[in-house]
Amino acid sequence: MDREPTFLSHPFDDDKLREECGIFGAIGMPDAANFVALGLHALQHRGQEAGGIVSYQPEPGFSSVRRFGYVRDNFTNPSVMAQLPGKIACGHVRYSTSGSKGAAIRDVQPLFAEFAMGGCAIAHNGNLTNADALKESLIERGSIFQSSSDTECIIHLMARSMARSIPERMKDALRLVEGAFSVIAMTRTKLIGVRDPRGVRPLMLGKVGEKGWVLASETCALDIIGAEYVREIEPGEMVICTEGGIESSHPFDKAKPKFCVFEHVYFSRPDSMIGGRSVYETRRQIGVELAREAPVDADLVCPVPDSGTPAAIGYSQESGIPYAMGIIRNQYMGRTFIEPTTEIRNMGVRLKLNVNRALIRGKRVILVDDSVVRGTTSRKIKEMILDAGAAEVHFRIASPPTQWPCFYGVDTPDRENLLAATMTEDQMCAHLGVDSLKFISLDGLYRATGEKGRAKEPQYCDACFSGDYPVKPSDMVAKGRIKLRENA
Amino acid sequence: MDREPTFLSHPFDDDKLREECGIFGAIGMPDAANFVALGLHALQHRGQEAGGIVSYQPEPGFSSVRRFGYVRDNFTNPSVMAQLPGKIACGHVRYSTSGSKGAAIRDVQPLFAEFAMGGCAIAHNGNLTNADALKESLIERGSIFQSSSDTECIIHLMARSMARSIPERMKDALRLVEGAFSVIAMTRTKLIGVRDPRGVRPLMLGKVGEKGWVLASETCALDIIGAEYVREIEPGEMVICTEGGIESSHPFDKAKPKFCVFEHVYFSRPDSMIGGRSVYETRRQIGVELAREAPVDADLVCPVPDSGTPAAIGYSQESGIPYAMGIIRNQYMGRTFIEPTTEIRNMGVRLKLNVNRALIRGKRVILVDDSVVRGTTSRKIKEMILDAGAAEVHFRIASPPTQWPCFYGVDTPDRENLLAATMTEDQMCAHLGVDSLKFISLDGLYRATGEKGRAKEPQYCDACFSGDYPVKPSDMVAKGRIKLRENA
Amino acid sequence: MDREPTFLSHPFDDDKLREECGIFGAIGMPDAANFVALGLHALQHRGQEAGGIVSYQPEPGFSSVRRFGYVRDNFTNPSVMAQLPGKIACGHVRYSTSGSKGAAIRDVQPLFAEFAMGGCAIAHNGNLTNADALKESLIERGSIFQSSSDTECIIHLMARSMARSIPERMKDALRLVEGAFSVIAMTRTKLIGVRDPRGVRPLMLGKVGEKGWVLASETCALDIIGAEYVREIEPGEMVICTEGGIESSHPFDKAKPKFCVFEHVYFSRPDSMIGGRSVYETRRQIGVELAREAPVDADLVCPVPDSGTPAAIGYSQESGIPYAMGIIRNQYMGRTFIEPTTEIRNMGVRLKLNVNRALIRGKRVILVDDSVVRGTTSRKIKEMILDAGAAEVHFRIASPPTQWPCFYGVDTPDRENLLAATMTEDQMCAHLGVDSLKFISLDGLYRATGEKGRAKEPQYCDACFSGDYPVKPSDMVAKGRIKLRENA
Amino acid sequence: MDREPTFLSHPFDDDKLREECGIFGAIGMPDAANFVALGLHALQHRGQEAGGIVSYQPEPGFSSVRRFGYVRDNFTNPSVMAQLPGKIACGHVRYSTSGSKGAAIRDVQPLFAEFAMGGCAIAHNGNLTNADALKESLIERGSIFQSSSDTECIIHLMARSMARSIPERMKDALRLVEGAFSVIAMTRTKLIGVRDPRGVRPLMLGKVGEKGWVLASETCALDIIGAEYVREIEPGEMVICTEGGIESSHPFDKAKPKFCVFEHVYFSRPDSMIGGRSVYETRRQIGVELAREAPVDADLVCPVPDSGTPAAIGYSQESGIPYAMGIIRNQYMGRTFIEPTTEIRNMGVRLKLNVNRALIRGKRVILVDDSVVRGTTSRKIKEMILDAGAAEVHFRIASPPTQWPCFYGVDTPDRENLLAATMTEDQMCAHLGVDSLKFISLDGLYRATGEKGRAKEPQYCDACFSGDYPVKPSDMVAKGRIKLRENA
Repeated sequence: MDREPTFLSHPFDDDKLREECGIFGAIGMPDAANFVALGLHALQHRGQEAGGIVSYQPEPGFSSVRRFGYVRDNFTNPSVMAQLPGKIACGHVRYSTSGSKGAAIRDVQPLFAEFAMGGCAIAHNGNLTNADALKESLIERGSIFQSSSDTECIIHLMARSMARSIPERMKDALRLVEGAFSVIAMTRTKLIGVRDPRGVRPLMLGKVGEKGWVLASETCALDIIGAEYVREIEPGEMVICTEGGIESSHPFDKAKPKFCVFEHVYFSRPDSMIGGRSVYETRRQIGVELAREAPVDADLVCPVPDSGTPAAIGYSQESGIPYAMGIIRNQYMGRTFIEPTTEIRNMGVRLKLNVNRALIRGKRVILVDDSVVRGTTSRKIKEMILDAGAAEVHFRIASPPTQWPCFYGVDTPDRENLLAATMTEDQMCAHLGVDSLKFISLDGLYRATGEKGRAKEPQYCDACFSGDYPVKPSDMVAKGRIKLRENA
Repeated sequence: MDREPTFLSHPFDDDKLREECGIFGAIGMPDAANFVALGLHALQHRGQEAGGIVSYQPEPGFSSVRRFGYVRDNFTNPSVMAQLPGKIACGHVRYSTSGSKGAAIRDVQPLFAEFAMGGCAIAHNGNLTNADALKESLIERGSIFQSSSDTECIIHLMARSMARSIPERMKDALRLVEGAFSVIAMTRTKLIGVRDPRGVRPLMLGKVGEKGWVLASETCALDIIGAEYVREIEPGEMVICTEGGIESSHPFDKAKPKFCVFEHVYFSRPDSMIGGRSVYETRRQIGVELAREAPVDADLVCPVPDSGTPAAIGYSQESGIPYAMGIIRNQYMGRTFIEPTTEIRNMGVRLKLNVNRALIRGKRVILVDDSVVRGTTSRKIKEMILDAGAAEVHFRIASPPTQWPCFYGVDTPDRENLLAATMTEDQMCAHLGVDSLKFISLDGLYRATGEKGRAKEPQYCDACFSGDYPVKPSDMVAKGRIKLRENA
Repeated sequence: MDREPTFLSHPFDDDKLREECGIFGAIGMPDAANFVALGLHALQHRGQEAGGIVSYQPEPGFSSVRRFGYVRDNFTNPSVMAQLPGKIACGHVRYSTSGSKGAAIRDVQPLFAEFAMGGCAIAHNGNLTNADALKESLIERGSIFQSSSDTECIIHLMARSMARSIPERMKDALRLVEGAFSVIAMTRTKLIGVRDPRGVRPLMLGKVGEKGWVLASETCALDIIGAEYVREIEPGEMVICTEGGIESSHPFDKAKPKFCVFEHVYFSRPDSMIGGRSVYETRRQIGVELAREAPVDADLVCPVPDSGTPAAIGYSQESGIPYAMGIIRNQYMGRTFIEPTTEIRNMGVRLKLNVNRALIRGKRVILVDDSVVRGTTSRKIKEMILDAGAAEVHFRIASPPTQWPCFYGVDTPDRENLLAATMTEDQMCAHLGVDSLKFISLDGLYRATGEKGRAKEPQYCDACFSGDYPVKPSDMVAKGRIKLRENA
Repeated sequence: MDREPTFLSHPFDDDKLREECGIFGAIGMPDAANFVALGLHALQHRGQEAGGIVSYQPEPGFSSVRRFGYVRDNFTNPSVMAQLPGKIACGHVRYSTSGSKGAAIRDVQPLFAEFAMGGCAIAHNGNLTNADALKESLIERGSIFQSSSDTECIIHLMARSMARSIPERMKDALRLVEGAFSVIAMTRTKLIGVRDPRGVRPLMLGKVGEKGWVLASETCALDIIGAEYVREIEPGEMVICTEGGIESSHPFDKAKPKFCVFEHVYFSRPDSMIGGRSVYETRRQIGVELAREAPVDADLVCPVPDSGTPAAIGYSQESGIPYAMGIIRNQYMGRTFIEPTTEIRNMGVRLKLNVNRALIRGKRVILVDDSVVRGTTSRKIKEMILDAGAAEVHFRIASPPTQWPCFYGVDTPDRENLLAATMTEDQMCAHLGVDSLKFISLDGLYRATGEKGRAKEPQYCDACFSGDYPVKPSDMVAKGRIKLRENA
């Protein structure tokens, strides 16, 4: 409700799915907030809009700094970091949720509350599918909401729990919520990590020196601070880290794991590991599978930079067609530019990408991209390539057609705006005006991740491709915002 | 002298040579400043510290906006651009000169002066080697300098010229300066482009529609606005663009062309063309030459991103050793971070680069980088690669050893800080602690640019590699800041 | 807990008691927030640290802007005011509470909460004496506090009330709090004003046109918008203003009125009316009484500007001694200055005040000030006057000795820092080093306000002079922060 | 030409003449810039738009900070002041010149230039009447102007002087300029003060300790730093202060002194001394003279605050009619407010002033103001007083009718906007709608300053009242902007 300056992120990247959050926590090291800042910097790709860090030291107690903008711009100032003293800290980077215009600093996490037994900060990656129903019920009982974040439900449920300790109150609260969540919480002496029973969102455990522990969304955030990778937090597990060691418990009913397959395709950084495998290698392998499933005769394999690069390398290696940087990405992209005249078409994409005209002219080009969401960018890239004189343009997509919205913490357009939800592959090919268009199959994608193929009860959450939602999106169904497949 | 807030650029990239400027001018199109903003955005890699644009419209006359920071952050605001009306405009992006701590907005170009016959704005890429002597002489005669920029000498020389028109005054002034310069100047009705007699710095001419002309440091800045590439301005040529057409003259004594060979190696964007050749292709070809000159048995060819990428692709293609992204670059790099503890070594480079550990472990790795300047980054990268478990590390460098400072508009460390000025190749290999280290030869580099090899009177300025300075750096010699090679 | 930039108010005025708040509400006029901004500007003397405005319009709902700094700097920007649309609005200006270092924007009022039956904003002038006890009890029951403001207790008590309407919930809540309060609340359709049963803090009702109503701390805020003064809200009264008219009720047990006598002495603006009397006239009359009670032979009567001016005029008129501006106040005072050297004594006061040396030299001067709190400023003023060559200095104080802290919404030093709590009048005279020092008597002060003298059950709250606290400061007593007089 | 954010000063005070500058310099004390900041704070009333300070210390040389806004907001920050080290410094506060919309930081003084014999900073109070002609001639000879300030002419004239020292070059330059000027200049070792031959603008000399000297526009700026008042710089005198002492010379042809009489009426602070007399006393004496010249029967004498206050006190004392604060000034005035509706008349003046309604009702009121310029404010004040129920309103003005613009450093409306240039006293009385209106006579004003009356060759510059311009405003005459009286 507070009218603060709005902060709009990246209009030219709006043709991608967006991971909404990255989380990081550290305990048992001096100036823990500095480690958190570095970890969040490594996780910036998971949320570019805003970031926050909470730390604790007996004097002055809990401290919090929350800001719009990049970690590097906000959490590198010594005078800012001096406001976050202590040996325990946690932080969060985020996008705004779909549909909100701009955002308020109140919504930036970690959220903090003072309970009778002490303070607690919470950072959340994921989305609660029953948050609206919970919120209504809490307001009726006298809770006052300060943010529009569904994470605040967890805080209020904890405030009302009769349990005597913060970890127990957290278990009480998380048993009442539905959806996908990886949560990092922090008290005066404990760093707590929890994943939902299906483990939809990632959460990694690392070690620093003798007594230090860190929790992070991805392993690349362990690398940046030189932490040792220990293991992944298990689906349904709560881990409590103190300077004395770690304790593990499994407070939820057991469920079949459903890790998000799109983390392999796009969200995670290529230098992270998931399930012990290099994300880069999985993506290169997707390119290999794609070359097998959808070969085509051509002169060059070019990635749509930067997300299509590993699959393009794989496609080139499997097909023997030379790999080339036919499209160059401007490294200084930012907000928005004024378009000089309407005559200049495709200005948006030109600000970010330029075709290597001398290279492309007269060539049959295979373009490898990670996904097609609205299809708007794909179309503009095709036009740039043809303007530069390419003889043929073949699109190869490193994921199956994206047909369903995600309700587990990813910003997706409504179904009617997903190109693949309204057209067949052939229709899309005609719509984009390319010589051929092929997506990898769901089985091919599963194979690239090391599985034999998609099992009857799939090993991943692939709802965005299949419409098989492992957790019912009950708020959305209640509001009529989504109609599920009949057999789902 | 004004104490303004200082703006420090990129401490972690300090192991590169720095092009100091990019320039762009436009005439004959509505809202010309918007085109200039886009052109400067495409040239941002040539100067990230500050940028400025001057435009002219009869009412309100000349307008100027000069700012620290990126083009995208300053020149995308509609209220800013509304302050730059008119059909003619020019602009500049810059680094600060070597050694200055921070910078003042007074030094940001274009510079502007009101002469008796009207106003004139000037944007300059290059460096005057006799600026100190000129400045002293001008102050004695009553000129008052407002900036620390050597470009201001040109302005004062023009103010004192007896010629009746601005282009003639400009010729008078430029005949008195020595060094390397590409200059764009702008009056109420003319856009003027000039290159020094040797053509050390680039300057391209483009066309927009029927009456529009643009001048730009590189062709990638023509692409972004959809301008047609016409030709390069010739060494020693002055071109005057008006809405009616262009006029060419050659006001200087003729000299042998000496285009900067480092533009091919690093400064220019890979999607630009120089002399009709793709810069990307030249760099890929450097990799091919390097694979021939310096082969080695290994498992992977990895670029040091992003500048080593084209040469690494070429090396892989020529050698048959697979190309892989063994090092991943963080796209959100910025200013500086507080290092958490001194225990964590190499933090600086870790903020920018991370090794793909799962990929590198146990492998013999060839790392391809564009150049070695101080060697500090190379050393840290080697350590990261070894920490990740690589079996062998071989460095291949896509330029000859950088042994001499540049005095023609590039920010170079003093000689004693250039690794190759103080060590042989073998000493450097030992110093960096790698299994092998090889640089491309000068002849190999020339071949990759399409020449048969380096001629006796070389086709390029390669002073940074050879110490053969085509223009004597007289201010520096006078100050004893450089001792030239005896035969130079 | 959020570490925001701190905003420190006025270090050189720290020798005054500080009213902590001014409040203003408006309903039934277009762009009501503009009226609120003007009203708060007129009440700026009651709180200079921060201000906030909440407005309501069906679309976009409730809007809030809260900022540190002056009303004139924050709420005059058209783009800010455009964020506060609607025909109903309320606002608040504040000082930070005693002892807090800096302040957080979360603490700036109006506070806002969403209840099951709709939103409500609250602005509060005063202080709750049982806020700590209430807060502890509310947290135990699951309430989460977001601010350090005692006003938030009212919000949480309302959230937990079982009543069906916001006014009824407000009555429930206010019956549970103790202390001094004038409150303005606002729903989508109602503007509500309440004063505590003793009416310690002021609250005025005004009318604008046919359907418009305003509530304000002082009448000067009615004048600025051209509103007609209707009447004071009565002690213990709740008034509900809608576009249809006003409704009055008296929800509390009846108590003897105890309006703050210091509003007459210092807090209110001289152009406001209290109880139908001009505050300026009351202050001038204090000067008249003071001249009768404490005459002295002298050459000039000089005010300590600006608060001593009306009493000095009265003293001059009653005594016949000429009035003169012996001390001139700098109108551009602000934050803090760096003192050049320790040699320069009294720099603080010199930044604000300068002696008219040519006027004072050789004269016997009577200085009239409104009050003595710590005595630090009085001492420095005396030194300045003597440095300028005055023959004698006589202090006359327009209030009785300030001996007790206020717990009803005024920022007072602890008792040990109140000069009059630790010294007799003679000791103070010696301590300040003046020729004589006299305070007006309590009876004289009461006479100046139109009473015959102080009744046995006093007509005002004069606890700061007498130690007779009309409401027990229970939190402070519980914490041992104050020891009451035995008979109190 | 640079398009910087504009800074607009005080729209509600636009019915006053504006002194355009205050200047201050200090030598021979550590951290001299801190003294300058304090001095400029005391001179803020002479220029509220912007301020600048230059200091010198061998390392880092000359330093300059120039900012829009108040001294207290810009020059109190320790990190800013740390940028101004050294034992010598000078500074300037300014209004923008009449007619300019907003202003550029380039125009903020002190201006600085590097000459062959070293750097020099200059701060100027006054206006050059032949600046346009000089500027044209300088540009023809190759000078490049960077600002729109006429002070820059002095700098360029100095740059072109053949003299060997900065003081001698300054004499050369100042002999070529015409108009009114008090100038403070600063080299590495000298602080220089000069007044024009007529001494139109003030300049005071003070002493700090053994070796410290200060120069200031008014004595109130000596008081704030505890400096001892030494004497006024004489008309036509140049004083050079070093740590070793002071040297005086008189480089100009002798002329009859013509100090600005309006400094007595309004510009100078009441606690300053001019010619050894208290400005406050002179103003009180104007009130005494006015009571004698223009008596009227009434109940109250009220000042228009704050500038009418001393004269109102004098009028009351001479007439025996009681003095009262009938109009109260809001101390928190600033920029501009959005007016809520057009119904609310006179909002502008209400933001600044409020009538003490309870006091005024039914009374015959004498309002004493310092001057009438456009008459717009006078008219609104009259309406406020009548709205409050005054029985009669009599205006008494403490200066003669302002009929002519000033060309010597004061911002005056064009003649056609000066009420007294277009109407007789009776017409003005009718226009303002008051019961009577009287101005003090020129002779009365001269008597109040201690003269016997206005001599045939007047002792002051009173051109704004008389049209007798002591220096011909040649630029203005050349442009046809002013038509002088025939006998002038």
